[in-house]
Amino acid sequence: MAVRAAVAGASGYAGGEVLRLLLAHPGVEIGALTGNSNAGQRLGALQPHLPPLADRVLAETGAEVLRGHDVVFLALPHGQSAAVAEQLGDEVLVIDMGADFRLRSAADWERFYGSPHAGTWPYGLPELPGARAALEGSKRVAVPGCYPTAVTLALAPAYGAGLAEPEAVITAASGTSGAGKAPRAHLLGSEVMGSMSPYGVGGVHRHTPEMVQNLSAAAGEPVTVSFTPTLAPMPRGILATCSARARPGTTAGELRAAYEKACADEAFVQLLPEGQWPATASVYGSNSAQVQVALDEAAGRIIAISAIDNLTKGTAGGAVQSMNIALGLPEDTGLSTMGVAP
Amino acid sequence: MAVRAAVAGASGYAGGEVLRLLLAHPGVEIGALTGNSNAGQRLGALQPHLPPLADRVLAETGAEVLRGHDVVFLALPHGQSAAVAEQLGDEVLVIDMGADFRLRSAADWERFYGSPHAGTWPYGLPELPGARAALEGSKRVAVPGCYPTAVTLALAPAYGAGLAEPEAVITAASGTSGAGKAPRAHLLGSEVMGSMSPYGVGGVHRHTPEMVQNLSAAAGEPVTVSFTPTLAPMPRGILATCSARARPGTTAGELRAAYEKACADEAFVQLLPEGQWPATASVYGSNSAQVQVALDEAAGRIIAISAIDNLTKGTAGGAVQSMNIALGLPEDTGLSTMGVAP
Amino acid sequence: MAVRAAVAGASGYAGGEVLRLLLAHPGVEIGALTGNSNAGQRLGALQPHLPPLADRVLAETGAEVLRGHDVVFLALPHGQSAAVAEQLGDEVLVIDMGADFRLRSAADWERFYGSPHAGTWPYGLPELPGARAALEGSKRVAVPGCYPTAVTLALAPAYGAGLAEPEAVITAASGTSGAGKAPRAHLLGSEVMGSMSPYGVGGVHRHTPEMVQNLSAAAGEPVTVSFTPTLAPMPRGILATCSARARPGTTAGELRAAYEKACADEAFVQLLPEGQWPATASVYGSNSAQVQVALDEAAGRIIAISAIDNLTKGTAGGAVQSMNIALGLPEDTGLSTMGVAP
Amino acid sequence: MAVRAAVAGASGYAGGEVLRLLLAHPGVEIGALTGNSNAGQRLGALQPHLPPLADRVLAETGAEVLRGHDVVFLALPHGQSAAVAEQLGDEVLVIDMGADFRLRSAADWERFYGSPHAGTWPYGLPELPGARAALEGSKRVAVPGCYPTAVTLALAPAYGAGLAEPEAVITAASGTSGAGKAPRAHLLGSEVMGSMSPYGVGGVHRHTPEMVQNLSAAAGEPVTVSFTPTLAPMPRGILATCSARARPGTTAGELRAAYEKACADEAFVQLLPEGQWPATASVYGSNSAQVQVALDEAAGRIIAISAIDNLTKGTAGGAVQSMNIALGLPEDTGLSTMGVAP
Repeated sequence: MAVRAAVAGASGYAGGEVLRLLLAHPGVEIGALTGNSNAGQRLGALQPHLPPLADRVLAETGAEVLRGHDVVFLALPHGQSAAVAEQLGDEVLVIDMGADFRLRSAADWERFYGSPHAGTWPYGLPELPGARAALEGSKRVAVPGCYPTAVTLALAPAYGAGLAEPEAVITAASGTSGAGKAPRAHLLGSEVMGSMSPYGVGGVHRHTPEMVQNLSAAAGEPVTVSFTPTLAPMPRGILATCSARARPGTTAGELRAAYEKACADEAFVQLLPEGQWPATASVYGSNSAQVQVALDEAAGRIIAISAIDNLTKGTAGGAVQSMNIALGLPEDTGLSTMGVAP
Repeated sequence: MAVRAAVAGASGYAGGEVLRLLLAHPGVEIGALTGNSNAGQRLGALQPHLPPLADRVLAETGAEVLRGHDVVFLALPHGQSAAVAEQLGDEVLVIDMGADFRLRSAADWERFYGSPHAGTWPYGLPELPGARAALEGSKRVAVPGCYPTAVTLALAPAYGAGLAEPEAVITAASGTSGAGKAPRAHLLGSEVMGSMSPYGVGGVHRHTPEMVQNLSAAAGEPVTVSFTPTLAPMPRGILATCSARARPGTTAGELRAAYEKACADEAFVQLLPEGQWPATASVYGSNSAQVQVALDEAAGRIIAISAIDNLTKGTAGGAVQSMNIALGLPEDTGLSTMGVAP
Repeated sequence: MAVRAAVAGASGYAGGEVLRLLLAHPGVEIGALTGNSNAGQRLGALQPHLPPLADRVLAETGAEVLRGHDVVFLALPHGQSAAVAEQLGDEVLVIDMGADFRLRSAADWERFYGSPHAGTWPYGLPELPGARAALEGSKRVAVPGCYPTAVTLALAPAYGAGLAEPEAVITAASGTSGAGKAPRAHLLGSEVMGSMSPYGVGGVHRHTPEMVQNLSAAAGEPVTVSFTPTLAPMPRGILATCSARARPGTTAGELRAAYEKACADEAFVQLLPEGQWPATASVYGSNSAQVQVALDEAAGRIIAISAIDNLTKGTAGGAVQSMNIALGLPEDTGLSTMGVAP
Repeated sequence: MAVRAAVAGASGYAGGEVLRLLLAHPGVEIGALTGNSNAGQRLGALQPHLPPLADRVLAETGAEVLRGHDVVFLALPHGQSAAVAEQLGDEVLVIDMGADFRLRSAADWERFYGSPHAGTWPYGLPELPGARAALEGSKRVAVPGCYPTAVTLALAPAYGAGLAEPEAVITAASGTSGAGKAPRAHLLGSEVMGSMSPYGVGGVHRHTPEMVQNLSAAAGEPVTVSFTPTLAPMPRGILATCSARARPGTTAGELRAAYEKACADEAFVQLLPEGQWPATASVYGSNSAQVQVALDEAAGRIIAISAIDNLTKGTAGGAVQSMNIALGLPEDTGLSTMGVAP
């Protein structure tokens, strides 16, 4: 019997992507679709790439319309998920694709978001040690941020094997869909095509504490993170270039072995053959992360690089993967490892 | 029992796309993969977006390795398909994604290709009247060109209903993958990003006689085609802007009705609601064609516009759709109408 | 002694481009800069590509601040130029980069803009026969629309030589800067990258009557225009693909000769050698139009194609060129024929 | 009296850019243009954005044709410049835009290039302390690499002021023109559009020792560099994200003051106002570098970011700037600080 799924925030990019994936999922039936400013509109006008739902009309986001489903995906601005989840009750699987329940530290939340902390839910990055167990049977899932997904998949193996010093330096390039669909001048095509630019420099990006949380968990000690996000002229994709000083004596062979071990059983993490490097085009629309690592012997640093699709593995694909685990379905149901390329 | 499929020319763009689709097809098992200059290489190095086949090694293209499959897809340079097909025998379904067997007129072939005509196979555009019947049970399929697919889906309804004068004027913009993967300076990213440019202007593009063939068939009288292709700064997609003078007395209502009737039962043609226009991004990686039509009353012309993905509906998706028909499978098996957007 | 120039609407794309050109103009000194919603901001925050003016602060648009200059460039929403111009008096050269004064027909204006017609000013396309004489010494200039500039330069030679039937069919691809800097969802980078889409189809685009006006003037008889604009994934550039049925008996040689004659003395129109086609990348940031023409003998049509930069030759460069003529300066002062490529 | 300049390698991207700049230079007259595989072709076919030189034909590269000029720009593959320079004699200003004469350490050269070291010429980055004096009157100039230009302008102020620890971690994104015009499959538009990917990871990129050389000179002590270049989907531009641990006690105020001092007198380095970050689009076609710096207090690191046009300030603009100094012309003659944007 099909799982009935509702999507709150169906007009945005995360909402559209989760619908694309759910339509291809053999065990899911799509129920209510809601929006705020777009309530009352046909989905065909808002998400013209999803013909099977073209004639569906968005309802106003609210607990009444979301109730009665087995799973509810929330693609809402931060701060709004707690109230909706509470009204849905404890028997519904609620998967929050926003930031509200990702951080364990209330202090970090308050420092970066300036509002009271809503709580902490099981964290939807199954590849993190211990994460799967917490997701199985859970009725709540906090989907990770797109940057933390890319960065954690790239660096956790090095930290898990004790090969890296606890100071990570990270530069990541993101496609523009990561900035959402609300129109702002600096996100116009005229501005972003042909341009690379940084933003949120100097430790202020809100995904930083989530990276600290994940890498520290992997390392078993506090890790500092210097994170610089950049906006790249492409609609989708994150390329995360991550580095840390290698612990003295680390060899390239040890490093490779640690990554091989960490990635061996992961359906959605591809450690590439030596010498081949990730490209965001290869994971376009896919739930895969491509990962590669090298040891820069002259500089004494580990360089780990990952490529993901920020909307798929970085948001909606990760959400569906976690849904599968929470519901006891095979983890890869309805998810593809293949990108649309070229 | 799964259909065993081989792909000759698996390292190029058409070959990669047909593999992407076949991997998602529930009734197909992938057999031999061949290449020419890339024989001996891992597919993972050539098509890094297809992890399930990463460790497969390309064989040299030849009948020996292609024999023993139920279906063989040919993604070869024109002029090479006839010899391969002959060696495979009459019991194997051979689907040619190249140009060799599309044209019915040997004279047209010789004028545009300068070589002897190899013959004519059943034409793999199921949406053309009469095409499905010819494809059912066929052991040979000629997949249409990408531009003729887009143009025919846009204009055939007008010609089929007798509403358009027999002189079509067409401008189409194509993504760069239509020009293939062989490296040439004018196709470098540095050259194509930020640039629109025409090519093959003045009636010399090789897809022109195929459009004439299709539109004339739809009209029941000879149609001339003035076709200008342009190269657009995007990897995939064709936007075809097609027009013809309206027959005297044609009304907007009649025109709309003709398109509604022609598209009503087609799973892979979406006639958009009035006022909404196609965009190539909406069909990225999808087997859909989006179509819209308008009557320009002041100029007395019908404007019909379609958007397809040149590699999917325009090549490999059309090929799989025709394979399904030829094999007696439901026509949409393994094919999606959804694009990857934004 | 330097000409003092003011720019009203300095925060938008047309305003920024005219400033870029004026800063490189040896005879101009830049005076007042104004804006509306951006008044009070540093230009460095709005136009970060113009360091020499980074510390200038925008004033509120109004006649007081614009008075006292020799030239005033208006980059305002349509409907606002007449009032400003009137207050500036008859002794100031006012160059309107908006639409208000381009059309000679008040009826056309009212049909396409739905408001009273403000009047008609000398038309700033010097390459049109008769236009230079009207511009010399004029105190008012209406800068042509970007599409009409591209289309007129492509087709006027054919019409001027009497070689084309009076029904033009035109498809043009424009970079996104043509749609301006006001943030709207369909112009987001996420939406436009990788996508081609039409808009204003069926004779409703406001540049249509201006093309009719220009081509009819060139032909000496009424010309109908079927115009389809499309949005291309690039920040700048227009590629206009224009065609008309050839008059019976027209030869390729006659056609070429007509274009050679029409373009021979034009500094900013490059008729390319036979076989070479325009590309928007070649005129990026340049005041040149590249033009090429062919005769499609099978279809009986003339295909004329032009590439311009919509912001330079299509708007601000055309404005400076007209300013030079109006002021009696050499027409090419401060203007480059070179593009920034690749 | 005009300086006569020749360009060897005029068909490539560096050659085309130096011609674009020299055509706009008031004191230069363009003499011989040479190429190798393209000798005998019209420049108009190879560099269609440079109409003033369209009818010039490329000669074969060789000393005979290059002799008799005041300045010769070499845009040749590495390893070829020494022989040409020797034949031109000591009285001609030879400006090498390739790598041959940049490094002071023969051992570094041999390790990274695997061939004998040709020597060391005065280094054409005038902004480096001491560089201008070495350039004045020199007859030889080694133009810096594009990445070292961006990185040095970003980090030298921090090292020069003694605020940064001597271990730099750098990620840079480059437009595809940095990879040249020779056609290779991974540089096709189909491959690069929509994709970010790294290359030369782990300390193997040939620009690494040049960065070490420059930053060590600025610091007065050996600096290690961990450098990761990435290919971005844009034709031009480099965004360099550079970081180093801050020396204990470094304050944001000190850091800002060091950058203000270092950039104050530099015409082609714009230290942006606090809070505004560089974007490659803002320096498109310009000789400017935009620079910004921040202190990440939680991570204890300095983050310095620069944006340049790899072909202008990063290659040909830097070359012209050095030519001006060598010839005793004002340093900014013929060079613009303005980008072409949007």
